[in-house]
Amino acid sequence: MSSVAQQMFQRHRETLDQALAAIADRGFWTPYPESLKQYPDDAVKGAPQRFEQMLRKPFALSLPGGVDSGESVGEEVSPYGFELGVSYARPDADALVSAMGSVLPEWRDAGVEARVGVCLEILARLNALSPDIAQAVMHTSGQAPMMAFQAGGPHAQDRGLEAVTYAWQAMSQVPSQARWEKPQGKHGPLVLDKRYHIVPRGVSLVVACSTFPTWNTYPGLFASLATGNPVLVKAHPGAVLPVAMTVKVAQEVLAEAGFSPWIVSLVPDSQAAPVTKRLALDSAVKLIDFTGSSAFGNWLEDNARQARVYSEKSGINSVIIDSVDNLKAVTQNLAFTLSLYSGQMCTTTQAIYVPKGGIQTSEGHVGFDEVAAAIATAVEKFLSDNDRACAVLGAIQSCATEERIAASRALGEVVLDSEARVHAQFPKARVHTPLLLKVDGDNKAAYREERFGPISFIVATEDTDHSMALAREVISEQGAITLGAYTTEEAVAERFERLAMDVAVPLSLNMDGGVFVNQSAAFSDFHATGGNPAANASLSNLAFVADRFVVVQSRRHHTAA
Amino acid sequence: MSSVAQQMFQRHRETLDQALAAIADRGFWTPYPESLKQYPDDAVKGAPQRFEQMLRKPFALSLPGGVDSGESVGEEVSPYGFELGVSYARPDADALVSAMGSVLPEWRDAGVEARVGVCLEILARLNALSPDIAQAVMHTSGQAPMMAFQAGGPHAQDRGLEAVTYAWQAMSQVPSQARWEKPQGKHGPLVLDKRYHIVPRGVSLVVACSTFPTWNTYPGLFASLATGNPVLVKAHPGAVLPVAMTVKVAQEVLAEAGFSPWIVSLVPDSQAAPVTKRLALDSAVKLIDFTGSSAFGNWLEDNARQARVYSEKSGINSVIIDSVDNLKAVTQNLAFTLSLYSGQMCTTTQAIYVPKGGIQTSEGHVGFDEVAAAIATAVEKFLSDNDRACAVLGAIQSCATEERIAASRALGEVVLDSEARVHAQFPKARVHTPLLLKVDGDNKAAYREERFGPISFIVATEDTDHSMALAREVISEQGAITLGAYTTEEAVAERFERLAMDVAVPLSLNMDGGVFVNQSAAFSDFHATGGNPAANASLSNLAFVADRFVVVQSRRHHTAA
Repeated sequence: MSSVAQQMFQRHRETLDQALAAIADRGFWTPYPESLKQYPDDAVKGAPQRFEQMLRKPFALSLPGGVDSGESVGEEVSPYGFELGVSYARPDADALVSAMGSVLPEWRDAGVEARVGVCLEILARLNALSPDIAQAVMHTSGQAPMMAFQAGGPHAQDRGLEAVTYAWQAMSQVPSQARWEKPQGKHGPLVLDKRYHIVPRGVSLVVACSTFPTWNTYPGLFASLATGNPVLVKAHPGAVLPVAMTVKVAQEVLAEAGFSPWIVSLVPDSQAAPVTKRLALDSAVKLIDFTGSSAFGNWLEDNARQARVYSEKSGINSVIIDSVDNLKAVTQNLAFTLSLYSGQMCTTTQAIYVPKGGIQTSEGHVGFDEVAAAIATAVEKFLSDNDRACAVLGAIQSCATEERIAASRALGEVVLDSEARVHAQFPKARVHTPLLLKVDGDNKAAYREERFGPISFIVATEDTDHSMALAREVISEQGAITLGAYTTEEAVAERFERLAMDVAVPLSLNMDGGVFVNQSAAFSDFHATGGNPAANASLSNLAFVADRFVVVQSRRHHTAA
Repeated sequence: MSSVAQQMFQRHRETLDQALAAIADRGFWTPYPESLKQYPDDAVKGAPQRFEQMLRKPFALSLPGGVDSGESVGEEVSPYGFELGVSYARPDADALVSAMGSVLPEWRDAGVEARVGVCLEILARLNALSPDIAQAVMHTSGQAPMMAFQAGGPHAQDRGLEAVTYAWQAMSQVPSQARWEKPQGKHGPLVLDKRYHIVPRGVSLVVACSTFPTWNTYPGLFASLATGNPVLVKAHPGAVLPVAMTVKVAQEVLAEAGFSPWIVSLVPDSQAAPVTKRLALDSAVKLIDFTGSSAFGNWLEDNARQARVYSEKSGINSVIIDSVDNLKAVTQNLAFTLSLYSGQMCTTTQAIYVPKGGIQTSEGHVGFDEVAAAIATAVEKFLSDNDRACAVLGAIQSCATEERIAASRALGEVVLDSEARVHAQFPKARVHTPLLLKVDGDNKAAYREERFGPISFIVATEDTDHSMALAREVISEQGAITLGAYTTEEAVAERFERLAMDVAVPLSLNMDGGVFVNQSAAFSDFHATGGNPAANASLSNLAFVADRFVVVQSRRHHTAA
């Protein structure tokens, strides 16, 4: 094995051991600080300037010979209102997949420790690059600066490390060799020497999304890479740069360790000439990770039959309010949840079920309309300071989402209208506050379809039983990645716990402080369960990694040396 | 949790711990002896009589209310020449699936230890019942008595225990609870209490086969059961009894532990009115384990899209002969491989690649025709004693296989003709010796299709490079569960090792003693890899169990007690 890769493995061995302990304990742990203060001052302060220097230029990556088509693409526009002007070589997709297949044996034969060492080194360098990656995430996804840094940097790296850790755990359970010695009564034993090889499935295609170009990409990328599969990342045409920067780091580390850099490659495309379907059906592509719409995720699952598909799709994230202790604390918590990144998280609540007869609080009974108004007021107050609002909302990634806000107004009674905001630093930024609608539980057409963006519904139900029945039905049909619930009764809490099990959705109970239903912490929270229509896999667990490789053994009679 | 199940878990805890060590070490280990001498004399001697008492009667199993259709089926005919006459209630399949879905929460909520305890107790009782199960396996599959005992009893139980062990390993890595405490600088930490639940996917359908009704059924059955999924076993109409006996034991143990017995249920059907497709498409069925033809396995994978499908299908098992030390030892080994259970193992060699210029041996060069003749002679000699022949060959399970022998004669030049034998004890038994044909490597139509049964081809190639190229092509296209290879050159052995990795097939190198390419030992040998078209899963590894459940978590703010 590469001695450089071996050094990388040794350098990060302690981090790996801590990560192994973390996925078992599931307490709080991270090796990648989420506070900018813990990064060098130069790294933080110089990031905007370094970002500026990348604009309006080609972004160079390694490509294997014979795949350069001579064409390039690049159509990224910052949701904050300017064109990035970065261009990327557009390789011949078929030739690239073929070339990646041909480097598979090199990466496979490097062995588990070398591969994991390379992955851990890539993650460490990505961590150091977090301030720069934050700039690229901000100006492609539209995330506000702090979120772009945290979710695009350390939290994404956490999820990558988590995947590497599960991959290590799954692979290292298989010994590289064994002696099998079967007694034969009075005869001498049968003795075989056996070898076990971790064999990757093939080329791994990771289809990145525009809203979380690193957070949703790293799990699949690192799970596949650690288990020996060359990884081709298909960036979203609107969010290529953070992915390209990631691929560049990976290629540099691979090259330093003596491997072909294009074991990790980028394939960009354009809205006009998408390449994902073609790649997904390539017979050499055996693994696909996808984050995006249910329509496309389902297409992949139905058509890319030669591949294992790990998909995170749409869903109807829900909150059920039965009763609360402190209504103000609850509505403040919900206000943050609904506002964060303008509802463009796959974990943002879309449906809030409230009994039409109102709810009990520590300050007495509160009617349905009052609850709705309290949520609206909390959002309004939370976003009343425009600078703070912009720092939470970020910008709307796509024009389609912006248009959806307007189109959704007619779906119910407006409790809180969405308003456009002007960003102090970026006046052309697409900034919009949440739209809150009231609907009756019977109005299924309104709230049973994912309305991606800052659009949520307060759904009037008969009572909590009805709320739970509706949530059960909607999540069973449409899926969900998060479920929040509020109750002051322990017996009702247990019923929520069982509902969560029945529809396989993670439950956040009585969130009324500094933790939000739409936040998910690596090493502790399983993001999605893989058990309802919103996702067929969880980030991350053993199932996410264990089928990305097979074990090939050989055996022969033992002969005394 | 059930205190009875808890006792079961404690009783078998040491076995589980040993099994955990065994899957990590992969040396020889089993808790279930394969020698009849280690079973009580009464259990062994009385087995034929107890089997006789089961014949020509209904076989009773527990069924949930409302599923009894009043109909029964039963068309088993022993390959040794008599009708079993056992009848089985044929439940309403849709109602049964629905009833099993309704007991899912009961089994889920029992918890990991209770479920694993019940599984281990079932296996222990199946082990004690091995002599009886051997009778049922023999008279449905046609296996000879010793194989029916070993493969149908202890070796099948080994594979069941292996699956339970992997399931335990995967589930026990997830803690049932955790405290997450995130520092907040000078503020107090955020503290959450979290719970994690193992949640099964749904009803598990295990489609049993006629040749190994227990060995190929136990892995899926126990993997699903341990992970919380109610298991519906669809027996092959020709081999119901061993499965029914297994289900009966499972139901007894479940009932003793206080669970609904029909958490494990049997659904029998008939050749004329098969029920598998209907069951496989039921929306409540989320897991399917299947052993059988590629045609049906592929149908399941293509159509049962709501389920995870684990399939073991057809393949072209191969042996490549480059050079040998002792030709006689090699041909004796191959003679056993080809004769055992008349080639009706999913691991039996179908294609033996030999260079047309012959091979080197320690006694000098041996021509192609001489190698072919030596294999034929070895088979002939091995089977010259009719009693020994019958004790190895067993009987041909189905008439279709018997007919295939005759139909295959024209596919090549007969090196050794198949002959019918008369079984001393069962004169009507379908006993046939292997058919060995010579074909040219170009005659792809002959040997590239699975010819299930005692039909093998000695394929003439240009040289070992050509043998490897053909094997690579055939296995990539058709799959294989075993690859044997013979060479005296270490450099060639390494090339075989790489070929095995490239096409993801287990390699047995230079088998010339008491171990055979078609034998696979639990806890040490991974049966199939899941990486070529012969199977999409391996028995057993983490991937075989890890996706049979999801983890559903809940979290809430910690409040000091």
